[in-house]
Amino acid sequence: MKVLVAIDSFKGSFTSKEAAEIVTKELVDADIQSDSVVVADGGEGTSTAYLENRPSAIKISTRVHDPLNRMVSVNYAFDPRKLVAVIDSAAASGLQFVKKDQSYANPFETTSIGTGEMIMNAALIHGATTIMVGLGGTGITDAGIGMLTALGCKFFDRNNSELSGKSGSLEKVNRIDLKTRLPKNVQLIFCNDVSGPLTGATGAVQMFGPQKGVLKEMIPQFESMFKKFAEVVDPMNHGTKSGDGAAGGLGFAFRMLGAKRVSGFNFVSQISSLEKKIMNTNLVITGEGKLDDQSFYGKVPVDIARLSQKYHKPCIGVFGSIEEVSLKDAQDIGFTTMLTLIQRSENLEEAIQYGKSNLQTITQRLVPLFKMI
Amino acid sequence: MKVLVAIDSFKGSFTSKEAAEIVTKELVDADIQSDSVVVADGGEGTSTAYLENRPSAIKISTRVHDPLNRMVSVNYAFDPRKLVAVIDSAAASGLQFVKKDQSYANPFETTSIGTGEMIMNAALIHGATTIMVGLGGTGITDAGIGMLTALGCKFFDRNNSELSGKSGSLEKVNRIDLKTRLPKNVQLIFCNDVSGPLTGATGAVQMFGPQKGVLKEMIPQFESMFKKFAEVVDPMNHGTKSGDGAAGGLGFAFRMLGAKRVSGFNFVSQISSLEKKIMNTNLVITGEGKLDDQSFYGKVPVDIARLSQKYHKPCIGVFGSIEEVSLKDAQDIGFTTMLTLIQRSENLEEAIQYGKSNLQTITQRLVPLFKMI
Repeated sequence: MKVLVAIDSFKGSFTSKEAAEIVTKELVDADIQSDSVVVADGGEGTSTAYLENRPSAIKISTRVHDPLNRMVSVNYAFDPRKLVAVIDSAAASGLQFVKKDQSYANPFETTSIGTGEMIMNAALIHGATTIMVGLGGTGITDAGIGMLTALGCKFFDRNNSELSGKSGSLEKVNRIDLKTRLPKNVQLIFCNDVSGPLTGATGAVQMFGPQKGVLKEMIPQFESMFKKFAEVVDPMNHGTKSGDGAAGGLGFAFRMLGAKRVSGFNFVSQISSLEKKIMNTNLVITGEGKLDDQSFYGKVPVDIARLSQKYHKPCIGVFGSIEEVSLKDAQDIGFTTMLTLIQRSENLEEAIQYGKSNLQTITQRLVPLFKMI
Repeated sequence: MKVLVAIDSFKGSFTSKEAAEIVTKELVDADIQSDSVVVADGGEGTSTAYLENRPSAIKISTRVHDPLNRMVSVNYAFDPRKLVAVIDSAAASGLQFVKKDQSYANPFETTSIGTGEMIMNAALIHGATTIMVGLGGTGITDAGIGMLTALGCKFFDRNNSELSGKSGSLEKVNRIDLKTRLPKNVQLIFCNDVSGPLTGATGAVQMFGPQKGVLKEMIPQFESMFKKFAEVVDPMNHGTKSGDGAAGGLGFAFRMLGAKRVSGFNFVSQISSLEKKIMNTNLVITGEGKLDDQSFYGKVPVDIARLSQKYHKPCIGVFGSIEEVSLKDAQDIGFTTMLTLIQRSENLEEAIQYGKSNLQTITQRLVPLFKMI
């Protein structure tokens, strides 16, 4: 009997790595052979997943600008043997910098410059030739102008004055120079599972802006700024391509640079040899904070259940909560069964607070059943 | 793969029979062979357990006096083929008649007469020759004088006047005649797992009186009444034998009649052929509303886990809540593992309210694991 643990983070409770540690400990204590994978969805946690799954990778710390132009320390993953860097855009340009409790920084002042600075650091200081950027969890709505500026691209207004790389500059852009200071041999790749375009109902402003501080009354102005910017930068398609709306428009900016787009799960799956590990196990345990209707697209445990089904491996999903999903629905995807961590009367806050202990408890209680298989 | 379902009632949520039906349905739907047993602890539910487990038994309805001397309809089980009657003393003399919300009837006025009337009904009307009475869940604190009176025993005061069969009479008893009107061939048996004596710290008054309406200030008087009564009725032992304190003193009264005492679980186990069914299954599912330290003595699921262990059968305990009991403790008794019904954030009230649905959900989620065994 061998069990593979591949649990995504439970926000507020534990990371994917901590989940793997908690569950693996219980399996080992019960003499059950186990293996684990640190997973992520290609957004936040992608660099950690890379660090954990690639023994030759190291953690690089550097200082860059956050969305409000303050210096912050950030980490990314770098494999000196393969010259691959893996960066989470959220590390420098994350929501955590602009949202405090329920109030937000002024979105016109936000910039994705820090993400660009991390890319430059990886390329120029460490010599990375493959730079993978995970989108997701960002707090910026600047169509990527900050990141592009950091890479060396230039934006000019009607008077040929160079513009700064922040949201407020977008509508003034009249002329661009997209030549970067990146060495020629650098390949940029971005992980993105969001399919919306830059503007419109499913775009970066209307769909995702509000969760990053774009107030309802600012939406028309942001839409107009984004449209004008897209017309100048992308005269062919005007930012209407799938994925352009990801990460406040970083998806659009990466496409403008000719970067290669990959699915976040596929990337993480590949760096962790997930598919091979599933083939070599008897049972898979996956999970995430919440399983709901929305989880069915682009969520890690769902993709893992699908892979498990492909190789005819039983897959147990453990979730903080399961909402509006029947066991039948879950089984159709590939889950053998699903359980919640909750093992006593508690409210959501307590469930999150006691997440680690609850994960340990449910694992302890499942282990005797695993041993009977 | 064959599963035996033997779950005790979850108070406020479902009966043992309902639990068996819910779980069995899910097993059958999943093509898992199953068998079930309706269990009880020898208190409330014993007659139902008999009815459910003995196909030849029928339900007898009759009208008797409740603890406050009001006529009420009650049921008991009777097997015309074996002439066995099984009576729950709580049916006629239960707490439900004296406790309303948090207020209680005057305990000096309570009487166990109804339990005696049920016995007489079984013996004289239906010809039962073995009458089994389950103690537990009663609302009376009368040392059994009501029940004894109903059977034909007589109690006289100092002036040789006959006394009525209620608590208030106890201290006036000066002379007794314990001859009953029961036919000679009737064997009385009582199920009792409570070991306390009639009086003292672990007795019927001090230990159990308060939950039946004996207020703190009444305790000295009740103790004194019980002591005087025991001195007259039981000059040898004064009500100090183990079990005398059960059911407000009904245990004492049954001992005075020479009735045979059996363990509730053993009785229910025997009538349901539980041991044989455990031998013939691959997995046992048991459970109860709550598992705590106190459950370790005289609780049905614990006894079932022990029996399962004896026959090397895995035993899964499902509980409404698990408190202060580690998996290790439970495994030492014989549980393979234990789980709670709770599958989402909810308070105790909701957990009780949604008990049936939660039992169904956890069963559905466990079934795929059973199928892997």
